Amino acid sequence: MSGTWGNNIKLSIFGQSHGKAIGIVIDGLPAGIELNFDYINNEMQRRAPGKNKISTPRKERDEFDILSGYFNNKTTGTPLCAVIYNTNQNSKDYESIKNIMRPGHADYTGYIKYSGFNDYRGGGHFSGRLTAPLVFAGAVAKQILERKDIIIGSHIKSIGNINEEYFDWVNLKGEFLKEIVKKDFPVIDDEIGTKMKELILKEKEEEDSVGGIVETAVINFPVGIGSPFFNSVESKLAHIIFSIPAVKGVEFGAGFDITKMKGSEANDEFFIDEDKVKTYTNNNGGVLGGITSGMPIIFRTAFKPTPSIGKVQKTIDISKRENIQINVTGRHDPCIVQRAVPVVEAACAVSLLDLVIEREGVKWII
Amino acid sequence: MSGTWGNNIKLSIFGQSHGKAIGIVIDGLPAGIELNFDYINNEMQRRAPGKNKISTPRKERDEFDILSGYFNNKTTGTPLCAVIYNTNQNSKDYESIKNIMRPGHADYTGYIKYSGFNDYRGGGHFSGRLTAPLVFAGAVAKQILERKDIIIGSHIKSIGNINEEYFDWVNLKGEFLKEIVKKDFPVIDDEIGTKMKELILKEKEEEDSVGGIVETAVINFPVGIGSPFFNSVESKLAHIIFSIPAVKGVEFGAGFDITKMKGSEANDEFFIDEDKVKTYTNNNGGVLGGITSGMPIIFRTAFKPTPSIGKVQKTIDISKRENIQINVTGRHDPCIVQRAVPVVEAACAVSLLDLVIEREGVKWII
Amino acid sequence: MSGTWGNNIKLSIFGQSHGKAIGIVIDGLPAGIELNFDYINNEMQRRAPGKNKISTPRKERDEFDILSGYFNNKTTGTPLCAVIYNTNQNSKDYESIKNIMRPGHADYTGYIKYSGFNDYRGGGHFSGRLTAPLVFAGAVAKQILERKDIIIGSHIKSIGNINEEYFDWVNLKGEFLKEIVKKDFPVIDDEIGTKMKELILKEKEEEDSVGGIVETAVINFPVGIGSPFFNSVESKLAHIIFSIPAVKGVEFGAGFDITKMKGSEANDEFFIDEDKVKTYTNNNGGVLGGITSGMPIIFRTAFKPTPSIGKVQKTIDISKRENIQINVTGRHDPCIVQRAVPVVEAACAVSLLDLVIEREGVKWII
Amino acid sequence: MSGTWGNNIKLSIFGQSHGKAIGIVIDGLPAGIELNFDYINNEMQRRAPGKNKISTPRKERDEFDILSGYFNNKTTGTPLCAVIYNTNQNSKDYESIKNIMRPGHADYTGYIKYSGFNDYRGGGHFSGRLTAPLVFAGAVAKQILERKDIIIGSHIKSIGNINEEYFDWVNLKGEFLKEIVKKDFPVIDDEIGTKMKELILKEKEEEDSVGGIVETAVINFPVGIGSPFFNSVESKLAHIIFSIPAVKGVEFGAGFDITKMKGSEANDEFFIDEDKVKTYTNNNGGVLGGITSGMPIIFRTAFKPTPSIGKVQKTIDISKRENIQINVTGRHDPCIVQRAVPVVEAACAVSLLDLVIEREGVKWII
Repeated sequence: MSGTWGNNIKLSIFGQSHGKAIGIVIDGLPAGIELNFDYINNEMQRRAPGKNKISTPRKERDEFDILSGYFNNKTTGTPLCAVIYNTNQNSKDYESIKNIMRPGHADYTGYIKYSGFNDYRGGGHFSGRLTAPLVFAGAVAKQILERKDIIIGSHIKSIGNINEEYFDWVNLKGEFLKEIVKKDFPVIDDEIGTKMKELILKEKEEEDSVGGIVETAVINFPVGIGSPFFNSVESKLAHIIFSIPAVKGVEFGAGFDITKMKGSEANDEFFIDEDKVKTYTNNNGGVLGGITSGMPIIFRTAFKPTPSIGKVQKTIDISKRENIQINVTGRHDPCIVQRAVPVVEAACAVSLLDLVIEREGVKWII
Repeated sequence: MSGTWGNNIKLSIFGQSHGKAIGIVIDGLPAGIELNFDYINNEMQRRAPGKNKISTPRKERDEFDILSGYFNNKTTGTPLCAVIYNTNQNSKDYESIKNIMRPGHADYTGYIKYSGFNDYRGGGHFSGRLTAPLVFAGAVAKQILERKDIIIGSHIKSIGNINEEYFDWVNLKGEFLKEIVKKDFPVIDDEIGTKMKELILKEKEEEDSVGGIVETAVINFPVGIGSPFFNSVESKLAHIIFSIPAVKGVEFGAGFDITKMKGSEANDEFFIDEDKVKTYTNNNGGVLGGITSGMPIIFRTAFKPTPSIGKVQKTIDISKRENIQINVTGRHDPCIVQRAVPVVEAACAVSLLDLVIEREGVKWII
Repeated sequence: MSGTWGNNIKLSIFGQSHGKAIGIVIDGLPAGIELNFDYINNEMQRRAPGKNKISTPRKERDEFDILSGYFNNKTTGTPLCAVIYNTNQNSKDYESIKNIMRPGHADYTGYIKYSGFNDYRGGGHFSGRLTAPLVFAGAVAKQILERKDIIIGSHIKSIGNINEEYFDWVNLKGEFLKEIVKKDFPVIDDEIGTKMKELILKEKEEEDSVGGIVETAVINFPVGIGSPFFNSVESKLAHIIFSIPAVKGVEFGAGFDITKMKGSEANDEFFIDEDKVKTYTNNNGGVLGGITSGMPIIFRTAFKPTPSIGKVQKTIDISKRENIQINVTGRHDPCIVQRAVPVVEAACAVSLLDLVIEREGVKWII
Repeated sequence: MSGTWGNNIKLSIFGQSHGKAIGIVIDGLPAGIELNFDYINNEMQRRAPGKNKISTPRKERDEFDILSGYFNNKTTGTPLCAVIYNTNQNSKDYESIKNIMRPGHADYTGYIKYSGFNDYRGGGHFSGRLTAPLVFAGAVAKQILERKDIIIGSHIKSIGNINEEYFDWVNLKGEFLKEIVKKDFPVIDDEIGTKMKELILKEKEEEDSVGGIVETAVINFPVGIGSPFFNSVESKLAHIIFSIPAVKGVEFGAGFDITKMKGSEANDEFFIDEDKVKTYTNNNGGVLGGITSGMPIIFRTAFKPTPSIGKVQKTIDISKRENIQINVTGRHDPCIVQRAVPVVEAACAVSLLDLVIEREGVKWII
């Protein structure tokens, strides 16, 4: 059960990297929404490979085709299916290496789970390419939220050991977030961004790779959304964020660092500001008891270094059951963090839309 | 929708801190399982307050009563309901402070979500006390898993700034894990444990509190469980772990630190050891592509400092909508990390049992 | 997975006929609803046994105890758990007959499913007694719907071969429905009702039993609720109605008889009446394409004769695996149809409430 | 939320009659299953229009294209998506009639639910054409079940007032069922079948339509599958059967007629036959307490007459809000029962496969 998600907005994702098509069914969107396709295309472009030296030179035409659920320039209220056809399905390349389990990839675990029948070409269903349909769904959700003035944005908090400052968890503004989202390499401080890119290129040079942390913020999200326990905002967001390939950690507000604080430091003290309830700090990242507080929702996502590297690695041939060596050839991303940013935002958007509908009904959207 | 969880094993948790009873319904357990109640009581005791100076002196009789689903010393296969009656329901204490929003607690967000109708006494449904039924369910799941030789255990990785080493992610042994689980204050290095306890007492002295990190390991879990994308092992585990009050971060394997590694360092290289597939390192924490690899499952959970502190804090009176000051009186845990350990293991156990049944059917259990 | 139901309102039912208690957790009710307990008790009484000669003389004290989710005379918005303690748990009677598979009961199928570990006393979890918690939940849902002027009512359409007329599917009025609901033996024509009761008593005399059909109507339900395909109103209602023990058929509007009509007879022609869209007939029972039309929702439920009868029947001893004879002693209902009426209405109420929340959000309730 | 269904096998159906494509995502199929495409095509052909005089002369090329989840002639274990492209998308015809609410159709309820934004061309998402993807999924499930010797088959029990006998609920044989399934017009008695077809042609002549009843049987299905209450076999089957357009009733075993029996007639007495537990009769249709008994599963589905008829009918123009008259032109089925037979079997197959996996795990399939 790998591709189905959601309570009020249901996603069903499908496809393999080198299959005929990848795509997504979005069930639960209300009728009558006019989609901004420039907006969607822009989000798709943010994720697309082949744009610059720090990404894979592979070109993928991430042009989606809407098969259903959209009519006369509006959503119909029935399931919306969007597909992206794969134009380049050269399977031959993969035949020779199908039994070589690439370290850090899902080759081995997929082989066991699917008894060797999984599509091994280019990672198959495990491919990062499957995040493209998620970005499509996210771009739909994100623009719906934006109409309610809810803004989602992220910056690259770190690449390897190169860090920049956190978002201002308390006073973050929508205009600022939108500016960040427009950047090719979304950082607050472009000088640090340049250093990050240099590190990526250095690792690329060495046929190695590097990871990083994405910090995401959501502002103007309504207070009182989410539930204690099993439907907490953190639970729902973490669930979908951890479904993105290469994610190894998720934290909210001060996150792991909050464990080093005293209660008197960690607690976000309340005050009333022009009849609005606010907190002086936002170490809880906008969520208390699983429910949104009205402060910015803040979370960070840890991405591991791209597992595909040119360097020689030890591994196994699963059919011969013998130890061998491998160097993964092909055109890899030396770092996937910058391309993962819109994926995190997309996952965040569909998750928050699902939560808000639980409280407000689908009518809220229209 | 706060209390329902699971696909194959369904939990439905209910109750408020000062209501008549708290409890849980566990639906989906197969018939014919003889439960070890000493085992369950022991897990309940690990979570129970009032045991020592570093916990709250509040006594709670966490004696559960099984209302259904158990007959002739065996599970019946129909829903098992266990309740814990609350004996001490002194509501009067809370009347005067019901409009005072305690910082770091869910008082405000609960007030908004429930329009002021939530049970405000002792945190109500948000209370950490609600984790007792979860520990009950976990103790059932954990002993079922142990019969298959699957061992779950945790240590306190840090309290405030006091850290101890990680588990040995590669060579961890079941016997070792079981020894850790037996400890009152589960750490690998008891000398560091003593320092942690001293820190807790120091913060208690100062009417403050402190947080920490729990590291959990699961060994002998079958390979090939979980799915890519929305049902990844990380997604499922993170979802339920983040439903535990006070959790602000979850990471797997090397977690956030993996972002600082190169691909050549982060990748866990495979080798065959006596016909078993293993990895030299385990930076991925036993999960690749959302599916278990057969290596120990490793994850860490960040707990914030107990929000209830005696120190004076700024906050608001929500009914008068004015800024006030508060010092939270009563008997609080200066640190909840040590009591949270069995809760994390319980959540982990039910989640993994749910996942394994997806693949193997409920028959696997028997 | 027997006891969990619902998308927006989640039910978790538990208990066995002769266990400590039976009960239900209702998750998803909004906060701030003051429950009318007279209303609930009245619905419980409608289902209760022991009231008259046509029901079992068994007395069951169906007094519920609310363990959670209700505070200061209002729902809290967190899970509401209600239990009914079983006072009469004489297990001894059942020991001798536990291997005798009563025809028409779930003894055999339960034995196989639960490998002989199910609670066999009085039907265990399969007992009709488990419908008491469902009636509780239904009484909550029903009164919430009534505040929106949505009225649910049923009459006994037939007992054995004794039939009365259908509801007026087009012009049914709320006041009329409420009058029917008040009756001990809810029929439109009390003379026919008397004949029905005579038939029941005759079968009782003969140590036999009889079944019947319940027709249910819902008026003033909003138009546009439900979905085509898998979430059709018929799908949702039929799902929960078929979960009631002894139900063997469900039909909407003209039901099976519509198959004998021509299209020109079956189609409900539309017209506009004072700006309201209506149909001249209502053969579709208020649902078209899975979505409510604003006309009364009409459905009928077929109940089989009570399987417990005094007459000698052939059956098997499952432990000895031999053919034997049985006459089921004890105090049985010669007919359960009249007691099933509030159960059908309860199931209908929770199902419709769940559907309307999908569209309107939980806010609609308040 | 219209297109998503299932617990262990998840379906996500999408498309509109005159959109680009209709299709389905099937999530949860295990890896390594070689599909028999002749089998699938045959099921698709059974449903296809345009084959003979008693169906619509419309031709639809129901050729499916598998976009994902199938590789090297085997399922991959990841989501399988199949689409059917619509070649004939002449929207113009519908512009003029979009505000005319056809009686018996979902035009009006869809208009309200989707605020007028639904795709009105040819019924849009409500179209019977959407059952083609369901037949595809069913053909996959059905062949998986057949490998375990589980046979699903149906006959047309009645068209209008023309009835044939029931299946032999007790002694039905797989070979017999397979013979029925092969027939163009699946009846037990072909002479009665001829009369049924004559009736259909007569109604066609009169620009009217007719309905009927389909009786379905499943043999060799394992005993002990399903659950009491909310996951009863009847609940699960009825849920998905009622999602098929035009269904107005579902009954199991003796169904509504069981209400006219005495308990001593209705009860299916057990006996042991060569160590196998059987019943002499099968009035319960193979299900007791929601759980399969090992006897044939028997149910009947009532289909209303095709709502599209040439005869003049009263209705409304929703935009002008005025009463008008309509005669629905175009090429309609005078009866959809014969084409609905494979749809019922498909829905039955996916539902039973889902239930059996709950107990046995996905491994059972392989």
